[in-house]
Amino acid sequence: MTLPFTFRSEVVPADAQAVEQLVRATGFFNAEETAIAVELVTERLAKGPASGYWFVMAEEGAKLAGYACYGPIGGTACSHDLFWIVVDPAIQRRGLGRQLVARAEEAIRAMGGCRVYIETSTRGQYQPTRGFYDQAGYRLEAVLEDFYGPGDGKAVYVKVVG
Amino acid sequence: MTLPFTFRSEVVPADAQAVEQLVRATGFFNAEETAIAVELVTERLAKGPASGYWFVMAEEGAKLAGYACYGPIGGTACSHDLFWIVVDPAIQRRGLGRQLVARAEEAIRAMGGCRVYIETSTRGQYQPTRGFYDQAGYRLEAVLEDFYGPGDGKAVYVKVVG
Repeated sequence: MTLPFTFRSEVVPADAQAVEQLVRATGFFNAEETAIAVELVTERLAKGPASGYWFVMAEEGAKLAGYACYGPIGGTACSHDLFWIVVDPAIQRRGLGRQLVARAEEAIRAMGGCRVYIETSTRGQYQPTRGFYDQAGYRLEAVLEDFYGPGDGKAVYVKVVG
Repeated sequence: MTLPFTFRSEVVPADAQAVEQLVRATGFFNAEETAIAVELVTERLAKGPASGYWFVMAEEGAKLAGYACYGPIGGTACSHDLFWIVVDPAIQRRGLGRQLVARAEEAIRAMGGCRVYIETSTRGQYQPTRGFYDQAGYRLEAVLEDFYGPGDGKAVYVKVVG
């Protein structure tokens, strides 16, 4: 059965475990990356907005189906990072990734943000990811060669939203 | 009287105030940036290497004459950020900036680092800063337009050190 997605910006304690399970389920992130994903949730729970991390949580019924995490970039007038977009692999192809990005952009615009940055790897494994950003209206603005490691550069995408 | 510079990597509690005075004395950094400079010192004092912040402190006699702050970039094989290079404006033109950069690079290489990144503004005020990085062998690899604000882009410099 397919339920409609519901969205919330509030983060609740149960999200820490739900995010960990979701990130693991993708098979896409290593242990260090998974730990960082969970840490952003616990930082948000502990410090609220002062954490600098903001979330869009998507649920299908009571189950976390995906989420986006973003935040303002310190020392900038209105630039934001979109840190994470994760969708449950069991429910892909329903446009949830696109909805999460759109809702994060709306929230960023509403809090006075103007530019959204996304960083990802230049490796082949991330080609679908980069295609997704292209489709979502992001422009590849810079590539830092070998940034993550030999042959593994950093691609920086940007979208002007305000 | 001109004393030779002495260098140390240890950070001591008195450095917090000395760094604040030094950063203010340059007249180059705003209140938010000054607070961040001090925070990196106090983070290092509180957490040691786990802070992710490493320092080269230069003294002339007992007085802090300049410093560099760098650290490994999480999620990368061997990339490092060079966050700060500050020299007392009263003692410029003795090559201390160059020495601080060289010593930071040596230390980064010694801890297995391979690439050093420096980020700065594209604004005219930073032209001498960018010239300094050019002279120190850094290559401008990317520019993110309007990153810091309208007309204030981010320039990303890199140097391969290992």
